[in-house]
Amino acid sequence: MRLLLLNGPNLNLLGQREPGLYGSTSLEEIEKDLKSFSDTEGIQLECFQTNFEGALVERIHQSIGKIEGILINAGAYTHSSIALRDALLGTGIPYVELHLSNTSSREQFRHHSYLADKAVGIVSGFGAYSYRLALEGLIFYLRQAN
Amino acid sequence: MRLLLLNGPNLNLLGQREPGLYGSTSLEEIEKDLKSFSDTEGIQLECFQTNFEGALVERIHQSIGKIEGILINAGAYTHSSIALRDALLGTGIPYVELHLSNTSSREQFRHHSYLADKAVGIVSGFGAYSYRLALEGLIFYLRQAN
Amino acid sequence: MRLLLLNGPNLNLLGQREPGLYGSTSLEEIEKDLKSFSDTEGIQLECFQTNFEGALVERIHQSIGKIEGILINAGAYTHSSIALRDALLGTGIPYVELHLSNTSSREQFRHHSYLADKAVGIVSGFGAYSYRLALEGLIFYLRQAN
Amino acid sequence: MRLLLLNGPNLNLLGQREPGLYGSTSLEEIEKDLKSFSDTEGIQLECFQTNFEGALVERIHQSIGKIEGILINAGAYTHSSIALRDALLGTGIPYVELHLSNTSSREQFRHHSYLADKAVGIVSGFGAYSYRLALEGLIFYLRQAN
Amino acid sequence: MRLLLLNGPNLNLLGQREPGLYGSTSLEEIEKDLKSFSDTEGIQLECFQTNFEGALVERIHQSIGKIEGILINAGAYTHSSIALRDALLGTGIPYVELHLSNTSSREQFRHHSYLADKAVGIVSGFGAYSYRLALEGLIFYLRQAN
Amino acid sequence: MRLLLLNGPNLNLLGQREPGLYGSTSLEEIEKDLKSFSDTEGIQLECFQTNFEGALVERIHQSIGKIEGILINAGAYTHSSIALRDALLGTGIPYVELHLSNTSSREQFRHHSYLADKAVGIVSGFGAYSYRLALEGLIFYLRQAN
Amino acid sequence: MRLLLLNGPNLNLLGQREPGLYGSTSLEEIEKDLKSFSDTEGIQLECFQTNFEGALVERIHQSIGKIEGILINAGAYTHSSIALRDALLGTGIPYVELHLSNTSSREQFRHHSYLADKAVGIVSGFGAYSYRLALEGLIFYLRQAN
Amino acid sequence: MRLLLLNGPNLNLLGQREPGLYGSTSLEEIEKDLKSFSDTEGIQLECFQTNFEGALVERIHQSIGKIEGILINAGAYTHSSIALRDALLGTGIPYVELHLSNTSSREQFRHHSYLADKAVGIVSGFGAYSYRLALEGLIFYLRQAN
Amino acid sequence: MRLLLLNGPNLNLLGQREPGLYGSTSLEEIEKDLKSFSDTEGIQLECFQTNFEGALVERIHQSIGKIEGILINAGAYTHSSIALRDALLGTGIPYVELHLSNTSSREQFRHHSYLADKAVGIVSGFGAYSYRLALEGLIFYLRQAN
Amino acid sequence: MRLLLLNGPNLNLLGQREPGLYGSTSLEEIEKDLKSFSDTEGIQLECFQTNFEGALVERIHQSIGKIEGILINAGAYTHSSIALRDALLGTGIPYVELHLSNTSSREQFRHHSYLADKAVGIVSGFGAYSYRLALEGLIFYLRQAN
Amino acid sequence: MRLLLLNGPNLNLLGQREPGLYGSTSLEEIEKDLKSFSDTEGIQLECFQTNFEGALVERIHQSIGKIEGILINAGAYTHSSIALRDALLGTGIPYVELHLSNTSSREQFRHHSYLADKAVGIVSGFGAYSYRLALEGLIFYLRQAN
Amino acid sequence: MRLLLLNGPNLNLLGQREPGLYGSTSLEEIEKDLKSFSDTEGIQLECFQTNFEGALVERIHQSIGKIEGILINAGAYTHSSIALRDALLGTGIPYVELHLSNTSSREQFRHHSYLADKAVGIVSGFGAYSYRLALEGLIFYLRQAN
Repeated sequence: MRLLLLNGPNLNLLGQREPGLYGSTSLEEIEKDLKSFSDTEGIQLECFQTNFEGALVERIHQSIGKIEGILINAGAYTHSSIALRDALLGTGIPYVELHLSNTSSREQFRHHSYLADKAVGIVSGFGAYSYRLALEGLIFYLRQAN
Repeated sequence: MRLLLLNGPNLNLLGQREPGLYGSTSLEEIEKDLKSFSDTEGIQLECFQTNFEGALVERIHQSIGKIEGILINAGAYTHSSIALRDALLGTGIPYVELHLSNTSSREQFRHHSYLADKAVGIVSGFGAYSYRLALEGLIFYLRQAN
Repeated sequence: MRLLLLNGPNLNLLGQREPGLYGSTSLEEIEKDLKSFSDTEGIQLECFQTNFEGALVERIHQSIGKIEGILINAGAYTHSSIALRDALLGTGIPYVELHLSNTSSREQFRHHSYLADKAVGIVSGFGAYSYRLALEGLIFYLRQAN
Repeated sequence: MRLLLLNGPNLNLLGQREPGLYGSTSLEEIEKDLKSFSDTEGIQLECFQTNFEGALVERIHQSIGKIEGILINAGAYTHSSIALRDALLGTGIPYVELHLSNTSSREQFRHHSYLADKAVGIVSGFGAYSYRLALEGLIFYLRQAN
Repeated sequence: MRLLLLNGPNLNLLGQREPGLYGSTSLEEIEKDLKSFSDTEGIQLECFQTNFEGALVERIHQSIGKIEGILINAGAYTHSSIALRDALLGTGIPYVELHLSNTSSREQFRHHSYLADKAVGIVSGFGAYSYRLALEGLIFYLRQAN
Repeated sequence: MRLLLLNGPNLNLLGQREPGLYGSTSLEEIEKDLKSFSDTEGIQLECFQTNFEGALVERIHQSIGKIEGILINAGAYTHSSIALRDALLGTGIPYVELHLSNTSSREQFRHHSYLADKAVGIVSGFGAYSYRLALEGLIFYLRQAN
Repeated sequence: MRLLLLNGPNLNLLGQREPGLYGSTSLEEIEKDLKSFSDTEGIQLECFQTNFEGALVERIHQSIGKIEGILINAGAYTHSSIALRDALLGTGIPYVELHLSNTSSREQFRHHSYLADKAVGIVSGFGAYSYRLALEGLIFYLRQAN
Repeated sequence: MRLLLLNGPNLNLLGQREPGLYGSTSLEEIEKDLKSFSDTEGIQLECFQTNFEGALVERIHQSIGKIEGILINAGAYTHSSIALRDALLGTGIPYVELHLSNTSSREQFRHHSYLADKAVGIVSGFGAYSYRLALEGLIFYLRQAN
Repeated sequence: MRLLLLNGPNLNLLGQREPGLYGSTSLEEIEKDLKSFSDTEGIQLECFQTNFEGALVERIHQSIGKIEGILINAGAYTHSSIALRDALLGTGIPYVELHLSNTSSREQFRHHSYLADKAVGIVSGFGAYSYRLALEGLIFYLRQAN
Repeated sequence: MRLLLLNGPNLNLLGQREPGLYGSTSLEEIEKDLKSFSDTEGIQLECFQTNFEGALVERIHQSIGKIEGILINAGAYTHSSIALRDALLGTGIPYVELHLSNTSSREQFRHHSYLADKAVGIVSGFGAYSYRLALEGLIFYLRQAN
Repeated sequence: MRLLLLNGPNLNLLGQREPGLYGSTSLEEIEKDLKSFSDTEGIQLECFQTNFEGALVERIHQSIGKIEGILINAGAYTHSSIALRDALLGTGIPYVELHLSNTSSREQFRHHSYLADKAVGIVSGFGAYSYRLALEGLIFYLRQAN
Repeated sequence: MRLLLLNGPNLNLLGQREPGLYGSTSLEEIEKDLKSFSDTEGIQLECFQTNFEGALVERIHQSIGKIEGILINAGAYTHSSIALRDALLGTGIPYVELHLSNTSSREQFRHHSYLADKAVGIVSGFGAYSYRLALEGLIFYLRQAN
């Protein structure tokens, strides 16, 4: 099984940016953690972060026929990018949406997600641990679906 | 550590009610599963289901000083009960909100939750496995907080 | 054929409460009337009234496998109870929604019903006679469906 | 007692148009049925169908002093015609609104009716049988009012 | 100078329909009154009433090159007919909108007019006398414009 | 018969301010005109203009028992002053609302009036001639009411 | 004179729950205080608290013919319960609505009350002292009405 | 192949009405043009214009079993007529919606169409040439569908 | 302790203006009553009424350093004056908002107050007695705060 | 060049009122500062502050023919006064709108300005320094326009 | 004549992505088709696809002085990109908006376009054939404009 | 002191694009001007323009620890980019928002900014001079803050 972890804009700042809100773990640490968990599950996990909407779209396109499931923390693009939604639906690859913070306790414009209604499931609010839960959920879903 | 799993209206029908939407696992099976997982973590888990809003409120009141964290699938009351919100906030016990189905892909009135903005985190869409992920998330949160 | 007539909050006051709005027939008289009509049609009609949302939900659960059709005047819960909607949909039993008064000529918040879009049909505005029309409609529907 | 049954636009297609939605009974059959029921009740029933809003308005005007009650399935004009509302209120003749389908389970723009708040009562969702229930309801109302 | 007085749906009922709301003067009396006033002003006034939206549209078309100003009480079509608006704008003939009753003190849906923003002026609330004031206003406008 | 003409903020600029929109007649000319028309009708007309909301309110209070009808062009206060509405309703004196321009063809915030629903009638869009029509309408109304 | 004090969900927690928001007086102390004030006024005061919407409804029903006025702090049900509104209107007993906190400075969903428009009067924001003011207001109202 | 071109209210004025907005070609010229294009494609094109909503509805009814595709410029009825939508859906004949002007750059109320969501396709803004493009599109669609 | 009672527009009419709505007690009587109650409590009460928004603002400014609490019935300005809100917040003097009538049972535009969310508390609906309750509430608040 | 600086309600409190929000510079200091800057630029600056909407309106009227540009901090009237807008537009004098605080980070009702869309430019958020920037901007604009 | 065909995000997937919705023709085939049609018309057509909003903006900038008309299928950016709108308006090059699917029958957020109100015309719903119709429309427009 | 001037999409067209709206000064001229002003103030100013949202985000990231204040004209991204907001807040660098045109007098969708509520201050409407005023404001703010 081959999975892809996508991180959107500003998530490269993790650990530096507003630690009170997003925690002090860096993205590198999270990715390392998830890869090691994936290894023990016999799963191959690829990781990609970008601040460009177009680059996210293209990475999703490249997953066709190669990736069986996507974990996505689209950051701010969650709330503004229809192109991202179209890319995910266009490839037909199941995905799990995740957020570090609890988006429903933040600004009104973070309460709507263009990705949520078509996601397998959603995890939010557990800080860096949201990644781990989302990964477990995605693996469970894919194993059950096969 | 002592935790409480709360289930709201109609969740006693789990396994029977609209299996295409909610899966075929019964609530008893889920509770058994979570208790056994809790045991291995050295945690005591209590379970309570009711179809009465008032009974949910009172069970939460009784948790003061006894329970350190709450897992709650409030079902339909998620979207209509301010009394539940008040009970949770009144006791000050941290809670995780969870849903079997992905509520953002269902009717518009299920997109708003009276509990979400004050929850530690939220898990939805993984069917019965949402309970397991939510429990892991709650334990992680409480261990980190201590 | 076995049918269930459900009445929600405040309908026990019928005949006493705002007779200008709801008429002077009591709920007992309506139930007696409907039972006698059912008898002549060879139908068994059960009646239940409660002021508790949870009790309505549970009575609907108990109907699984026993009741073929439900007549429901959910009173105020029509406009606020998603739990009731879930209970009705969860059992899959066809139901007819009815109201004594014409809800569309009353307060704005009575113009929306959480039950209407999934009902077989709706009858409102004919006072106590709405029950009789709703019963005829339900019987007709069930006979035709078989 | 003399009653009038009014049918609005597209109802002449009944039996042909989207039978899955509107059933396979033709308007002629419905009218025949209602007339025969009226006969047994000693009531004279006139029937009129038109696709013109203006023609509906004028038929209502002509009812002044001749017709004691109106059954109206205004079809699409239910949701768009203030002229129809004015005609009905202008004559002061009591009317019952009816629909074949359950309008609250269809498009959002069918959830509002310009006629409903001033109607004696409303019946919807029972297919061709809605006409029969509406007629019974209107007769009951008129007999009670005298 | 040649003017046209247009009356829309239900205005043929004037004097009969809800006299408490619309007064007891008939449309014939109003038209006679306005014609006699026009005569003394050396103006030719044509009058037309219809309950058909299409007929109003066509009467306006026929005015091109013949009529210099229009008085219109479009009744219910004021609030629903874009076709009427288009007909008036298409001919480019200046018009005055008038109402017997004060539409802003009635139902919410009567507060918007599809004709008002392009009218020379608007008169409402003076009962049958609104016609007279609107006619004076239109004459004043046309004399000033020439 | 004693009437009062009230003019609100900025109407002292009439003839100077945006003549393309409001015309080139000054308020003094309008007042002179209306007074002379009133004289011929045997009516006493008082005139008052102010840019202060409070002064309008107090002038209305002083009219109790002295003034039988009010003509009011409240200018911008039409759309923002509830105090003015309360003053008019508090005295119970019938009033006609008038506007020089057609407010429904201007900014959205000019489409609502706090005075309109309780006015005898409304005249707008005829420039300075709106005053004359409004006065005729008010006189007609008061004569008819007595 | 016999009065009833009703308290809704979570008010049994008073003194414990969020003291920064609701103060540190317990419900028992408030009830004792009000009863002693009532005694000196020669009034009999009954007190009832419940977390169940249905139980509030039924307690109101039982007041018919026994209670002359109701003081109600419906807590969260203020904002969600139409059943409570119907119960109060159905019995026709005058009531005063009260709140400990100033609900208009809290979450948006607490700004609307289903009870307010039909209440004699409303008191909010004075903490436990709101009960005392509300009681004085109710007594004043009832004495004046007799 | 037999097609029908429908034109709604005010389109008989084409060439005369607001040429800056709608161009200077008359409807007769457009119809002649389209018929000649259809001839070369071996297609029979019928044309019908009316200002009556009811007449449009009936012409659509008469197309059942005779017409394979409809081109419709419903003019103002695009934005107000649910009856037209019902007629088109009731017959099940595929249709293309077209507009001379770009409706999205005009008044807000022209941005919604009751026909668009069920149309094969939509063409707007090319003036008289919109008809030609719409016809090509419809033919392409029908040929592909067979 | 020195307090200030502020009354806004039209409240000078009290006793005269719509007695069915506002009661028959004059403002002078209310002020006299409150002063005598204050005297017995050893409190100095100043009273001020004006119909000018600017005068209310300035009276509030003059209270800095002199007044410890404000009772305010801002009348219509409650719903429209941000300047009043700013004046009250700018001085930092605690205030109680009060209304004679129950504003939530009146026009929609009276349901919002620019003062409420920052008030100590709110009293409405008890007629002239609202002043007394508001005064008691303010005194209680100030005594408790010291 | 002669300019006018207008300050609206509560700005006389500057330096005293909520210094955390508005800074500690008094209005006198700001005016002195701006006058001295104007002197060095060879510009005559007049200053006027009032808490009365009507007085602002009249001061603007008096500027006709005397003042070439206006700096306005209308305070709370920014968000509520259409009369002010009308006065500014009526005189045709270019104006710059300014605010001490960043109004878009405050209450929702401060996000709309009745003056902004017709202003030359807008400056907000720089505290007392906003006045200086606004003055520079106005001078630049006027010099460029000549 | 030199034209430019722009395709936005995900359109490189054409033929692969959701063929039920977008058809099975690839973008290469469409571009080849349009180029060959352009050739026969003596027109030079350039084609560009990108998933980056910024790249679309820059390609439009580069068209200044080189391209006479633009065909644009902006995909998801149609509904979210104001930058694209600004780029198109900034260059002043006429453009036609096109869509493969009928956007008005899809999700609500696809009903609004930031490009539509300034486009020459719009074509949607004809699948790959929409490109051909849009090209014909653009050529017609440009030929007519010269 | 080191500052950064950021310009978003289409601002490279300045001087060319819609000069009636944006003026005829090029971005190069503006940057040169600001740099020379900065020099005289002993400040180092860096300038960056891009049409890519992601590139703006990354330039902001690179400013951490190097730049003390940001001037940003985000152009169209002002109204659509949450990623930009997150980047600015994530770095914690104070910024001033500026616009050439007065955005509040343009399309409705330009009235909201995702950056405004967290900006130090905002300047708009002074054309190229807005940059100068914004720079002065930023310098003032930073000097005062130190």
